[in-house]
Amino acid sequence: MTEKVRVNFASDNAAPVAPEVIEALQEANQGPAMGYGNDSITEAMEEKLREVFACDLRAFPVATGTAANSLALSVLVPPYGAVYSHKLGHIELDECGAPEFYTGGAKIVLLDGENGKIQAGDLHSALENSGAGNVHHVQPSALSLTQLTECGTAYSPDEVSTLAAVAKKHDLNVHMDGARFANALVSLGCEPADITWRAGVDVLSFGATKNGAMAAEAVVFFNMEKAKEFEFRRKRGAHLFSKMRYLSAQLHGYLSETNWLDWADHANKMARRLADGISEIEGASLTYPVEANMIFAKLPAPSLKRLSESDVLFYPNGPAENREIRLVASWNTTEEDVDTVLETIR
Amino acid sequence: MTEKVRVNFASDNAAPVAPEVIEALQEANQGPAMGYGNDSITEAMEEKLREVFACDLRAFPVATGTAANSLALSVLVPPYGAVYSHKLGHIELDECGAPEFYTGGAKIVLLDGENGKIQAGDLHSALENSGAGNVHHVQPSALSLTQLTECGTAYSPDEVSTLAAVAKKHDLNVHMDGARFANALVSLGCEPADITWRAGVDVLSFGATKNGAMAAEAVVFFNMEKAKEFEFRRKRGAHLFSKMRYLSAQLHGYLSETNWLDWADHANKMARRLADGISEIEGASLTYPVEANMIFAKLPAPSLKRLSESDVLFYPNGPAENREIRLVASWNTTEEDVDTVLETIR
Amino acid sequence: MTEKVRVNFASDNAAPVAPEVIEALQEANQGPAMGYGNDSITEAMEEKLREVFACDLRAFPVATGTAANSLALSVLVPPYGAVYSHKLGHIELDECGAPEFYTGGAKIVLLDGENGKIQAGDLHSALENSGAGNVHHVQPSALSLTQLTECGTAYSPDEVSTLAAVAKKHDLNVHMDGARFANALVSLGCEPADITWRAGVDVLSFGATKNGAMAAEAVVFFNMEKAKEFEFRRKRGAHLFSKMRYLSAQLHGYLSETNWLDWADHANKMARRLADGISEIEGASLTYPVEANMIFAKLPAPSLKRLSESDVLFYPNGPAENREIRLVASWNTTEEDVDTVLETIR
Amino acid sequence: MTEKVRVNFASDNAAPVAPEVIEALQEANQGPAMGYGNDSITEAMEEKLREVFACDLRAFPVATGTAANSLALSVLVPPYGAVYSHKLGHIELDECGAPEFYTGGAKIVLLDGENGKIQAGDLHSALENSGAGNVHHVQPSALSLTQLTECGTAYSPDEVSTLAAVAKKHDLNVHMDGARFANALVSLGCEPADITWRAGVDVLSFGATKNGAMAAEAVVFFNMEKAKEFEFRRKRGAHLFSKMRYLSAQLHGYLSETNWLDWADHANKMARRLADGISEIEGASLTYPVEANMIFAKLPAPSLKRLSESDVLFYPNGPAENREIRLVASWNTTEEDVDTVLETIR
Repeated sequence: MTEKVRVNFASDNAAPVAPEVIEALQEANQGPAMGYGNDSITEAMEEKLREVFACDLRAFPVATGTAANSLALSVLVPPYGAVYSHKLGHIELDECGAPEFYTGGAKIVLLDGENGKIQAGDLHSALENSGAGNVHHVQPSALSLTQLTECGTAYSPDEVSTLAAVAKKHDLNVHMDGARFANALVSLGCEPADITWRAGVDVLSFGATKNGAMAAEAVVFFNMEKAKEFEFRRKRGAHLFSKMRYLSAQLHGYLSETNWLDWADHANKMARRLADGISEIEGASLTYPVEANMIFAKLPAPSLKRLSESDVLFYPNGPAENREIRLVASWNTTEEDVDTVLETIR
Repeated sequence: MTEKVRVNFASDNAAPVAPEVIEALQEANQGPAMGYGNDSITEAMEEKLREVFACDLRAFPVATGTAANSLALSVLVPPYGAVYSHKLGHIELDECGAPEFYTGGAKIVLLDGENGKIQAGDLHSALENSGAGNVHHVQPSALSLTQLTECGTAYSPDEVSTLAAVAKKHDLNVHMDGARFANALVSLGCEPADITWRAGVDVLSFGATKNGAMAAEAVVFFNMEKAKEFEFRRKRGAHLFSKMRYLSAQLHGYLSETNWLDWADHANKMARRLADGISEIEGASLTYPVEANMIFAKLPAPSLKRLSESDVLFYPNGPAENREIRLVASWNTTEEDVDTVLETIR
Repeated sequence: MTEKVRVNFASDNAAPVAPEVIEALQEANQGPAMGYGNDSITEAMEEKLREVFACDLRAFPVATGTAANSLALSVLVPPYGAVYSHKLGHIELDECGAPEFYTGGAKIVLLDGENGKIQAGDLHSALENSGAGNVHHVQPSALSLTQLTECGTAYSPDEVSTLAAVAKKHDLNVHMDGARFANALVSLGCEPADITWRAGVDVLSFGATKNGAMAAEAVVFFNMEKAKEFEFRRKRGAHLFSKMRYLSAQLHGYLSETNWLDWADHANKMARRLADGISEIEGASLTYPVEANMIFAKLPAPSLKRLSESDVLFYPNGPAENREIRLVASWNTTEEDVDTVLETIR
Repeated sequence: MTEKVRVNFASDNAAPVAPEVIEALQEANQGPAMGYGNDSITEAMEEKLREVFACDLRAFPVATGTAANSLALSVLVPPYGAVYSHKLGHIELDECGAPEFYTGGAKIVLLDGENGKIQAGDLHSALENSGAGNVHHVQPSALSLTQLTECGTAYSPDEVSTLAAVAKKHDLNVHMDGARFANALVSLGCEPADITWRAGVDVLSFGATKNGAMAAEAVVFFNMEKAKEFEFRRKRGAHLFSKMRYLSAQLHGYLSETNWLDWADHANKMARRLADGISEIEGASLTYPVEANMIFAKLPAPSLKRLSESDVLFYPNGPAENREIRLVASWNTTEEDVDTVLETIR
């Protein structure tokens, strides 16, 4: 009942689970454990995140990125609030209104910006003209940054700091959607703290599913004031797992040794190899800078046709006459996979 | 990092995962698969449920019982609607308002009834005086039955039919919270269809987590009209898994051969053995009929003290002077576990 | 196009508007005024309430009692919270789920109690067993008292104080639904402060519509911390009037001189006269103590039949074989109206 | 306590109430009437709207435009739905998230377009790329047009028809925000039906407050299927008035004879006079075509300074260096008022 083997560049979430994560599940499966997070694996997982981020924090496992983002925003934004996001933000385009549902109807206000990144000047202008304090308007309450962005680029520590400073000046909370946090991190070559709490991030959706886990993300509170409320909201959002230890075990296995960084680094390298190959093809071009594991490209028509008819899984975007393709490398992408793509389109 | 080995009668959700379910996860972990349920395992799982229930149906995996119940109700009840439930219902007492959240603020109207069961006469009276059609009152929209009930008893096919008929006469949808569906089913010795669609149930929360799965339930629509809406609500509730195949694989493994029935049967038998033992103890008494895997009992003070100080995990209810204990048997409870409890309290 | 003249005991909200209120509207109708409450009448109205309650406060006009109650609760209770109410509470029975809507899905937990009044002991017990702090349960957040109660009785200053003290001990906010506040007040013969802030009430729904206004209530914050949030919630609830001055003018006229107290006193006296008359009728009985302007009674079958066929407007409650009737006196009820009822049923 | 007399061009909702509306309130104030719309005035008001629109319909009075819009959308759009609106739409910019609140979190998707008008081509493109049927995206459910637009322009019958046809082709419901419906209507010189049901509008927010009423709008259903649901949603939104007849009386008085058309015509003429005057001033310019009672203009700095220091009430928009002013004429604007403005800025 397994799928026909194909070459996956459709998404990192179409990849299988890393063996180390499966092993962690098996290890967790010895005897009984109290439910709902009152177990030693959950405790150890949270402690591991404190090491990773080099600070005190609270961390809550959930199973989907949409849950991590929506629940995080629900404690940062009142129902009459506004969340500032890039116009390509996952919270705006790909969550079927989950942030609106969880916040009780808050509004996502959109900003433009090259390569999927919000510009500090644009954020500043928007906030200066936001109607803060005026009862007719939704109230600016949070900034949400995606790291890696939806265009595959990474915000540098300086960029995060600058944006967070603008946000803080206007009393906004800062959220980071880190569905591909590991890929951004290894690309930037900095410490986890440098692009989170040290730069002004209050709450992070720390993704693991796309980088080798089965279904596990952690909502990480650097600002711990809102953590208790989060627990009630997670439960009533139906995201509190009775057998929590199996969520926690995935994250624990993910963070063990340098697993998570190795997997992300590998995916980024495969994307680099693929991007380099595409660059050399006459008539092909990359749409955005390739900084991690995502590639957006335009191909000559015959190349695109061959690729579409091949065994390679990928996503096309936009109208036929001007089609862009998205190719995402994963923890288990091989050099052969990359070369298959390159040979097909060449 | 595994827990100190203790004897678990705290809950069936404190039990580990059955090996067959872990194996199903491993089998699913071969190569890539498209996300969000567009995979062959999800298809096969749904097909298996059609066989089990001997009818056409739509089935949607989610990871928690609260998600199954709240999402199911969200398509059966408008925001200005009322759900009729037993006053001990899990949806009322143990979900931190999740049904209210998912329905957009519907009200749960409570009915009493011996042994955790709603009586048809009480439901009839309540519905006759419900203010249906009157704009000042929430509008009766669904009946929700728990099978197994919160008192460990099972509704017979006749009881479900009679209640559903009253509900249908008043244009209510019928939901069944089947967190312990398997335990009820093997206790009743009937077909799955007999206590669901044949008896008038529209939507079933088909539980697996408490009976050997890791985190997997299926929302089963016998009335398929609402299925499309459900998909949007699941996504915006953040319960659509990207790597869905691992949810589906759990359910598929659960339903393979007679796994699920065997596990439930075993748990029920262990509970029977324990209940029989408790009955024979002077001064001890069972609070409700033991029909499946849940036992509610009162013990003499010295017995209760010994049990509390032992390695046995269980839940106490109510004030110290009149304490009731809950003991739940699981798929992996052993005769030794049962005898440990009996020896401790004797 | 006016209605056929009938004798109104159906409800105080079926009565017309007092001439003084109409006059206040006309006085307000001179020239332009800035909208949304930025006008001098709104300011003066708020100042008048400060005099009436002998304290600093914030007051926000809305047009319906349901809006006053639901909006008040929305700032006192989180979406995962619980409001404690008498089981006959208007917020539970007669608002089609408005409190659930405005709070984002909070739960109303019901208490019993003779004559429509919550008992401190029952509240204490409920709060001791509420699951406060436990993530599986909605969190106790507010007590809501109705003054006058739905049975026509009034909580004394001592009763309010005692209940509020129990609530405060458990960190609950205290709300008072004062749809018939004036009727209760003149019945008790105390100061407005005695049954509100001095007794521990944080927010009051101060009703005027039932006692001579057209459509005007004030949400009065003695605890002013939540007032700013209220303004945003009122706007997004669509209850911020552009021509606010006409709401404020109603309340200003209502509070001018002793209008509001005189009208309530008159209504109470008419109810007293009617209750005394009913008491003397063989086979008739009052269901609850008549303490203000509401009467609940049972009549001999022939009396009930005559009344039903007469021009008297009233509400029947309950099944035919055991029918209770509700008769409500208003600011403009006349002695002739009362005597018409008594003659009809005698 | 009335305001200092000033010249009002701030807003038509800063104008007083027309004497005919006050008279209608007084006429309604004879004796009792059953509450919540069960009265003969409400019936007559609805009948009058059937005459005005030359069709069968259901009409529900509410007191604010925000209530009319948000409640109308709440029955046209599921919580996971999208409403298409101009980016300057009142529902987007000036209702503090009320549409999101009432719809349970639906998203407003923004379209650009000259002079405040959505273009059919833009709507078509947006709908073709909307992700309809795809579970990751909010589902296109309604088009909302503002008539008069926020720029003071009117959609012609043809324009409404064309846009509604695009919407219908994609299964959207069509809502019209008619806060200044009368001003648009007299400007266009067509029948009410021509820009509503004949052109494809399903539900209309029929405004009266800005054109002489006190606080009254009607939600008019040409598509009557959703009317029953609307009644429950209005009640739980706390917008069902107990003394409904006073809302209905305002609308009835408004529609009597040709009151509403006369008032709108007068306001439009005053705006025309003002616009003509401004056009002749050197260095002054109109920002949008003046088609009804709203004027947007830019003035030479000295003119703007004089106007700001005068007794004339108006709204400035945008940054100081490039300020636009908004001037709105009302039912009671006089030629002297207009000339005062012109003299001040000349």
